[in-house]
Amino acid sequence: MKTDVILLGHGSGGKLSHQLLDELIIPTLSQVAQRDQNDAAVLEGINSSRLAFTTDSYVVDPIIFPGGNIGDLAINGTVNDLAMSGARPLAISVGLILEEGLSVSELREVLQAMKQAADKAEVKIVTGDTKVVPRGKGDKIFINTSGIGVFDHDWKICGSAAKPGDKILLNGSIGDHGMAVLASREGLDLQSDITSDSMALNHLVGKLLAEFGADVHVLRDPTRGGVATTVKEIAVQSQVDICLQETALPINAAVAGACSILGLDPLFVANEGKLLAIVAADKAEAALDLMSSLPEGTGAAIIGEVVSESNGRVMMQTALGGLRAIEMLAGEQLPRIC
Amino acid sequence: MKTDVILLGHGSGGKLSHQLLDELIIPTLSQVAQRDQNDAAVLEGINSSRLAFTTDSYVVDPIIFPGGNIGDLAINGTVNDLAMSGARPLAISVGLILEEGLSVSELREVLQAMKQAADKAEVKIVTGDTKVVPRGKGDKIFINTSGIGVFDHDWKICGSAAKPGDKILLNGSIGDHGMAVLASREGLDLQSDITSDSMALNHLVGKLLAEFGADVHVLRDPTRGGVATTVKEIAVQSQVDICLQETALPINAAVAGACSILGLDPLFVANEGKLLAIVAADKAEAALDLMSSLPEGTGAAIIGEVVSESNGRVMMQTALGGLRAIEMLAGEQLPRIC
Repeated sequence: MKTDVILLGHGSGGKLSHQLLDELIIPTLSQVAQRDQNDAAVLEGINSSRLAFTTDSYVVDPIIFPGGNIGDLAINGTVNDLAMSGARPLAISVGLILEEGLSVSELREVLQAMKQAADKAEVKIVTGDTKVVPRGKGDKIFINTSGIGVFDHDWKICGSAAKPGDKILLNGSIGDHGMAVLASREGLDLQSDITSDSMALNHLVGKLLAEFGADVHVLRDPTRGGVATTVKEIAVQSQVDICLQETALPINAAVAGACSILGLDPLFVANEGKLLAIVAADKAEAALDLMSSLPEGTGAAIIGEVVSESNGRVMMQTALGGLRAIEMLAGEQLPRIC
Repeated sequence: MKTDVILLGHGSGGKLSHQLLDELIIPTLSQVAQRDQNDAAVLEGINSSRLAFTTDSYVVDPIIFPGGNIGDLAINGTVNDLAMSGARPLAISVGLILEEGLSVSELREVLQAMKQAADKAEVKIVTGDTKVVPRGKGDKIFINTSGIGVFDHDWKICGSAAKPGDKILLNGSIGDHGMAVLASREGLDLQSDITSDSMALNHLVGKLLAEFGADVHVLRDPTRGGVATTVKEIAVQSQVDICLQETALPINAAVAGACSILGLDPLFVANEGKLLAIVAADKAEAALDLMSSLPEGTGAAIIGEVVSESNGRVMMQTALGGLRAIEMLAGEQLPRIC
């Protein structure tokens, strides 16, 4: 570790987060190789079951924002991490850390959003824990959700499975969640209705797998660090080069405008209802048609392809025809976005 | 809810915690009946497996205290919650919420303690998540651990299974963890070495079940709210009356002395390496012998019995021969003890 203290950027999901994980947390706790780091752990051989297990803590600020609140975000995020491993989400735990003085009505609103999101995703909230910290030692509500899913198939969907030729699909516009939270936090009046895309993607994944099975190689949701960081992670894990097409990236005009005004690159802005699906080339168009036909996939697009085996470079063909190298998010663009 | 805002006491594990759970959180999220509220949820019928699933967030202050730190506490606590359901702990997730400015060396010490505790309990840390909040929006480290266990048997060990005649066993002295944390937090020089009892109990439980199986009716660890609150919970869930013997309660002299000076009742002070086992009367002495023969059970004792079916009263025969009614912890005796 090059620093003696934890910096905000260690929570960015980008380069500093990876350093903290790779240099301290993972070597100490679990020794999982980088190429095997996925959104959920896979547990094999439990009375012949194969299970997925995942955890995420949510510290978003503000806790209520256009398009959702920390409650549905915490359910959708963990449902999505299970779905990205190819598992069917079953059960979720809820760990609440409440700050003394939090209003009960805000807590109720958050809990109701959790319940609605869980019902919509068809997962059960089965266990929980509640702690209270003194005023000034927390920030209203932090929520941890952990989840268990079961695999109904034997395919291994993971970040190290991208192959040259594969196409990269995205189910809709980028940057909505990050910009909705940022605008709400900073009180920006962007003259537009940017709302979070927070949404469970397990039903979409279920249909994609039922139709295309083993031809779906990688699924991952581009949350903290955005599409850029997530694509770079996959390129490194799979040891392939990836090329994105800037003009193919779906983005809402309001988000593009807000990013432009604020000097942010939407490729690094967090999403909470989006997934990248890396699919065998000959199934890509059919997979795109399926995605586009679903409510979670309006605006879906093929945004790039895996060009060759190599050591994990990501390039983007820009709108002007140039090539731009894409690296992970460095530092902390938008703290506490999820 | 009788209050508009969250109070510290809502995190006590006692009466206010139960109110928050019973009046808001559980009705909104899951509709689990009170008699079915246990330390872990049981998931049935996953490819013929029966699994336990639990979660706990740790916010103890200070993060390092005599006898342990927040890291081993977070592992042991979740291992114990799985063990109390009768399951064999398998896999644990780790969700870290770090405060900006935390020293990397403290983080390293906590992570190392987690790893050692996990190795000792023979559970694997399989997945994790790390968030960072700005200075003043957290307090050094909060840790959520969630855990999955598997049942190797068909017995239903739960809080509603206590029967008249059963004996109540405790594996050792009470109040050590709470008083160690309190003394350390307040900088009290108690002229003695009170250390936390933080310890994994899954090996002890495994041996108890292997020997006494279905004669073990209830297992529960008396953490927040102490032995008193936990016994009261069980009495209510099982709809029985319970009588404790004050003179039978194991307690270290230093803890008794410190409680006496500070005006605290050790029966309400948190433990992190203790369990209550409610066992069929004719197996109680043999179970005590087994416990006492194990390193986790030195100081074990039979501390009371289930006297009759009723509506959940707990009485204690005092040293002076009187009878004292035991209720749940009211308010917040020791905030942030785990």
